[in-house]
Amino acid sequence: MHTLVIGLGSMGYGAAISCLRAGITTSGVDLNPAAREAFAKDGGAAFPSVSEVTGVDCVLVFVINADQAEQVLFESGLFPNLTSDAVIINCVTLAPSRAESIAKRIGDAGFAYLDAPVSGGAAKARDGRMSIMASGDPNHFKRVQPVLDAISEKVFRLGDTPGAGSQMKLINQLLAGVHIAAAAEALTLAAGLKMDLHEVIDVISHCAGSSWMFENRGPHIADGDYTPLSNVNIFVKDLGIVTEEAGRTGIVTPLSDTALSLYREAAESGLGGEDDSAVAKLLARRSGIVLPGESA
Amino acid sequence: MHTLVIGLGSMGYGAAISCLRAGITTSGVDLNPAAREAFAKDGGAAFPSVSEVTGVDCVLVFVINADQAEQVLFESGLFPNLTSDAVIINCVTLAPSRAESIAKRIGDAGFAYLDAPVSGGAAKARDGRMSIMASGDPNHFKRVQPVLDAISEKVFRLGDTPGAGSQMKLINQLLAGVHIAAAAEALTLAAGLKMDLHEVIDVISHCAGSSWMFENRGPHIADGDYTPLSNVNIFVKDLGIVTEEAGRTGIVTPLSDTALSLYREAAESGLGGEDDSAVAKLLARRSGIVLPGESA
Repeated sequence: MHTLVIGLGSMGYGAAISCLRAGITTSGVDLNPAAREAFAKDGGAAFPSVSEVTGVDCVLVFVINADQAEQVLFESGLFPNLTSDAVIINCVTLAPSRAESIAKRIGDAGFAYLDAPVSGGAAKARDGRMSIMASGDPNHFKRVQPVLDAISEKVFRLGDTPGAGSQMKLINQLLAGVHIAAAAEALTLAAGLKMDLHEVIDVISHCAGSSWMFENRGPHIADGDYTPLSNVNIFVKDLGIVTEEAGRTGIVTPLSDTALSLYREAAESGLGGEDDSAVAKLLARRSGIVLPGESA
Repeated sequence: MHTLVIGLGSMGYGAAISCLRAGITTSGVDLNPAAREAFAKDGGAAFPSVSEVTGVDCVLVFVINADQAEQVLFESGLFPNLTSDAVIINCVTLAPSRAESIAKRIGDAGFAYLDAPVSGGAAKARDGRMSIMASGDPNHFKRVQPVLDAISEKVFRLGDTPGAGSQMKLINQLLAGVHIAAAAEALTLAAGLKMDLHEVIDVISHCAGSSWMFENRGPHIADGDYTPLSNVNIFVKDLGIVTEEAGRTGIVTPLSDTALSLYREAAESGLGGEDDSAVAKLLARRSGIVLPGESA
């Protein structure tokens, strides 16, 4: 089963080396030469374009957004390089309606499609322990089971219809985006009250105020380390999808709206490429306080 | 060690029966006859007023807010009923400045004080497994160690200064309040997208979008069961304390502000006494959708 991973960012790279580790023949495509060199060093075959990879049985798409996904799937010469029963697994976070239209175009071209956004962060991706929120035809799942086993700890099967996986990811990103901003707000207030941020994280992690994101991103703020694993721009995109989808269906999302405006303002002030927890820097500036690692 | 629990609500009742279970002589005071009857049935001594309980070595205060705490501590004839080395453990969520002033008045009266707000919810309280965020004199902690052991799984010692415990609780309530409202928003959107809410809770609980509150309160919304364990009015109060304290120190709290306005609007629309997750009903009404257990 020759597997092609398109997009060797933090999640895609993790998926690609997890496939290698499981003994799957794996090619990786990325525009970034550094990512290709690293992947080649790890034992993979690395290419700058999908048009150069042939005989592909399974495609894992890990690009940034829906536009990039459509570009690599439909405008890069991918289809002639696929075997006749190839399965395309789309792990990109995108609007459910977009997932449906991509699935249709791929089905029309005669290939199989799984709507399969992921969760878990870069560390779990490297360990082959992502969670996958997936929907699609059970026979297509069966064909790529070794690949799913290699990259994930848990595959949530959300029915046969493309779009259902993307809906679940949408709900996850709503919560994740609000929780990161809430962690930033809580730790900014704690800093303003002259509390020890590491102690705050230690205590709250054992209390009802905790969240996965508070425990994961809180230390970035307490350490003043905004090395991007996931970045501010991703939540500008993902909460944008959330609020658009909500708007389309008439659902009010006041917390997502508030969090999105914070990520947008952070991106506009030059923090877009920093870790998503850098939304705390924006709150600190607006509050006139200095967080760890920042200068007054 | 004769321990008096003032306020037999969900948390206070849990603390009181946990003390009984540990073999501590325990009296309980509550205005509500039903709470007193239940406590007497469980083997405690129940009274309508603190003035009727004598020879008290340790007081656990579990009333609703700072005003009630000051009333029961300073205007109900408590002090003459305390032994000379009695310790008052204040578990009420209140502003850190309020905790400091109460501590001072109690110290001036010659008694010991611990600032000791709690977390964990009614179920953990009943099991004697609350978390306590506590500050105060180490000697005072030592005197009431058996009581703290009886009611808690973990005591976070946050220094000697009254107010430090209340600061930590403030940060916890900011996060808890925002997370409950975020869970309500996420599940309202999921309902609007015709997703299965129980499936959403099951999946997201394994993903990066999870929070303690999402896992705890989400099922209330999916089941349409708003029996109050903690209620909407408590978060009107607690997020009110958060935003006041933040405002006092010049810290911006956009998510807390947004969540507080939702709890206030929910309370004003008659949901104040329902479970705090009933903020979802408000969002559903504003979105024109019907949640489980509601009628169109």
